Amino acid sequence: MTPKQKPDHKDVAALLAPDILELLDSAPGSIAVETAELHPADLADVAEELPRAALPAFLAALPSDRAADVLEYLDDDLRAELLEQMSTEQAAPLVAEMTPDERADVLDDVDEETAEDILDAIPEETRLETERLLEYPADSAGGLMTTEVVSVLETDTVESALTQVRAIARGGRREAMNTIYAVSASGSLTGVLSLRELLAAAEGARIQDVAWTEVQRVVGTADREEVARVTSEYDLVAVPVVDERGRLLGAVTVDDVIDAIQEEQTEDVQKLGGMEALEDPYMQTGFLALLKKRAGWLSVLFVGAMLTESAMSYFDSELRRAAVLMLFVPLIIGSGGNSGSQATSLIIRSLALGEARLGDWWRVAIRELSSGLSLGSILGVLGALRVLIWQAMAGKGYHIGPMQIGNDYGEHYVLVAMTVGLTLVGVVTFGTLTGSMLPFLLRRLGFDPASASAPFVATLVDVTGLVIYFTVALLVLSGTLL
Amino acid sequence: MTPKQKPDHKDVAALLAPDILELLDSAPGSIAVETAELHPADLADVAEELPRAALPAFLAALPSDRAADVLEYLDDDLRAELLEQMSTEQAAPLVAEMTPDERADVLDDVDEETAEDILDAIPEETRLETERLLEYPADSAGGLMTTEVVSVLETDTVESALTQVRAIARGGRREAMNTIYAVSASGSLTGVLSLRELLAAAEGARIQDVAWTEVQRVVGTADREEVARVTSEYDLVAVPVVDERGRLLGAVTVDDVIDAIQEEQTEDVQKLGGMEALEDPYMQTGFLALLKKRAGWLSVLFVGAMLTESAMSYFDSELRRAAVLMLFVPLIIGSGGNSGSQATSLIIRSLALGEARLGDWWRVAIRELSSGLSLGSILGVLGALRVLIWQAMAGKGYHIGPMQIGNDYGEHYVLVAMTVGLTLVGVVTFGTLTGSMLPFLLRRLGFDPASASAPFVATLVDVTGLVIYFTVALLVLSGTLL
Repeated sequence: MTPKQKPDHKDVAALLAPDILELLDSAPGSIAVETAELHPADLADVAEELPRAALPAFLAALPSDRAADVLEYLDDDLRAELLEQMSTEQAAPLVAEMTPDERADVLDDVDEETAEDILDAIPEETRLETERLLEYPADSAGGLMTTEVVSVLETDTVESALTQVRAIARGGRREAMNTIYAVSASGSLTGVLSLRELLAAAEGARIQDVAWTEVQRVVGTADREEVARVTSEYDLVAVPVVDERGRLLGAVTVDDVIDAIQEEQTEDVQKLGGMEALEDPYMQTGFLALLKKRAGWLSVLFVGAMLTESAMSYFDSELRRAAVLMLFVPLIIGSGGNSGSQATSLIIRSLALGEARLGDWWRVAIRELSSGLSLGSILGVLGALRVLIWQAMAGKGYHIGPMQIGNDYGEHYVLVAMTVGLTLVGVVTFGTLTGSMLPFLLRRLGFDPASASAPFVATLVDVTGLVIYFTVALLVLSGTLL
Repeated sequence: MTPKQKPDHKDVAALLAPDILELLDSAPGSIAVETAELHPADLADVAEELPRAALPAFLAALPSDRAADVLEYLDDDLRAELLEQMSTEQAAPLVAEMTPDERADVLDDVDEETAEDILDAIPEETRLETERLLEYPADSAGGLMTTEVVSVLETDTVESALTQVRAIARGGRREAMNTIYAVSASGSLTGVLSLRELLAAAEGARIQDVAWTEVQRVVGTADREEVARVTSEYDLVAVPVVDERGRLLGAVTVDDVIDAIQEEQTEDVQKLGGMEALEDPYMQTGFLALLKKRAGWLSVLFVGAMLTESAMSYFDSELRRAAVLMLFVPLIIGSGGNSGSQATSLIIRSLALGEARLGDWWRVAIRELSSGLSLGSILGVLGALRVLIWQAMAGKGYHIGPMQIGNDYGEHYVLVAMTVGLTLVGVVTFGTLTGSMLPFLLRRLGFDPASASAPFVATLVDVTGLVIYFTVALLVLSGTLL
């Protein structure tokens, strides 16, 4: 068995589920022991394979901290549905055991009434903490952070800090346990050190002597792209989150950063493909929800593309006089769209990674203008050659695959070749420039640059491409074909 | 100053660089102390702002472990260039101090001669370790992993393990310090526990009693997408890497997973946009290198798109008899391309995240066939309405912006509307199905599904769209216009 084809965890879960179901009937007390060595993520996979009705009993059969772990790894929708079905008495203790960030997420997902009932039934301190987290948007640093961080006073000694850390470690889990934050008496974040550094520190030293004082941090309202950028640039396992006055609120742990990066990226690719971003994975999105996300943009683009018909009508008399022009319409507008797609995806990614900033727009514009002219010249030469070669081969009956070689473009074929070539230079340059500037424009206006989708650029370029084509044709062919 | 506009780290580096340059001349001995509190990533930014010629002296002014840290955060190309310029005597100690995975990366980047000279000059053990890492492709688990992991025998006691860990922590850094791996006498990975769990464990217990025995792992040859999937699914800070016999080789730490995810995603988006993936960030890629990556695909697509001219020629007589058909060519092929782009980006992302697997192709095909028919029907109705409304408005001189309302499509305008509507159903369905199946086909053939770029799908659909259009026209208009 090669590693690529090893059984998927979901398949293993499907195999385990019937055993668990049987145990639920015969000996629910043994489930906790039987599954003790499974990673909670795998246990969540097993749970997803069980019939919905068996889920509350399954969770009840686990110790409440394990059940809370399983809830954390369960599919978001299923989890919300489950909590809505459970009694407040069963749901509240599980939710209270969850890590603060996941707890806030799940209460964001369930209906308002269930959220309020659960909040009322969990301990006061946990409730206040959760309510504070719920104030931040779900994809901001504050929405992603956990408040379970380890902080010590900067004036503490290393030994005292180590005792506190061991006590916290024994007392229950803390998510962001590998990093220790030093705070001042007023709660301001003043330093950071890793658990390793604390272990290695000389005994008797004070935290402020051994902690790093240049602490990378984000404010609670920072968006997830900013959090991802700081984490990735400084190779952090957790980014501390502070309020406007620099007081430590919590930390975003790297596992949540990875999830945020994956989600952001999925959104970007879907937008780039010309649709609204889905809320759930593709395979779990209902047919109608999927259709709605796609039909909107497709219809808007379609109505925009109707301008091509107007442009074609406008040049109707030219097209009738020089019907040969018609043959190249799809080739020309397609090339504009392709070069625009290239440019737009390049720039969207550069902006997302922070490689290019808004102020770089003119540097990018100069670069893409040169790129467009070069690429356009290459395609222009290919296009003109095509006309000249096909003319020379006309009527000889050659084929390459399905493509017939040779066509008669009439006595002015050299002018036709020139028209096609020059148009391609213009269309590709315009496509490249439009595709590269659109993401900057969108960001400037406060939109997501990724909304500059390939189809959007292609549609924009289609209409302009036709205008460029017929204008060049009027200039080159005037007096002969036109 | 709002957080979004805080000065960028690069700007701070630009401000610091002149001071450092002055110190290099006047008091190089004080540089280490002056910069002691800076994060190595920031120090690397400062280094990037210095003149190239000053870099070796700058690194020499730092303690060798700090200099090695700076090298780890330096831009890959600059780092390679720098090591090639330095003497082996200066370069080797710095490279030896780097973490094993970064060391292997940098030796992969420099020219072969430099790499061999450096390898010969570093300690035997470090050399062997590096050579083992160099055997794995750079984007496999083996290429990404560090060998600096903490492993203890499963039969050790907790206290003995803790003593070992404190000794290792004091002896120098280990990257993957927060996770402790338990191995059998033969080196097989048998368990895992976090540093926190070790701290919290009861004294006197054995590692095998307190470690988790279900350890998520990858083999050295696994690709980076697999590593990312395991990390993200199980919320790991490090994924252990084993050989085919299950022996622990090292671990991929989460910071490298994030970098790998970012790189993979950048590649995917660039491919999706219809170009070869760049090796360096856009702003740092030379003009000619950029052109080369773009011109290849653009030319291939252009040659493919020439088939549209062949298709147009093939239907030349139909086009001359029913010139009205011509007007809708850009609108129709554009809609096919747009729906194809949507479908392909949806499916590429689903495959990348492992939401959909190769075996799901037929389920996706059924889904996308229904989506395509529905979306096609929506656009078909819009298209037919456009013809009917424009016909009714003909000659009345209305405008919406630049778009003239009204056009005369002749006496058979109802048949024209029907042709346009039915064609759109066909073209959009075909575009959607092609766009969704192409990524599956590419993966099946062993290629990256992301190569199914939006422009590739659009070009494929353009040619077929024309054939569908004229076939429908022949069926609907035969006996009237054709």
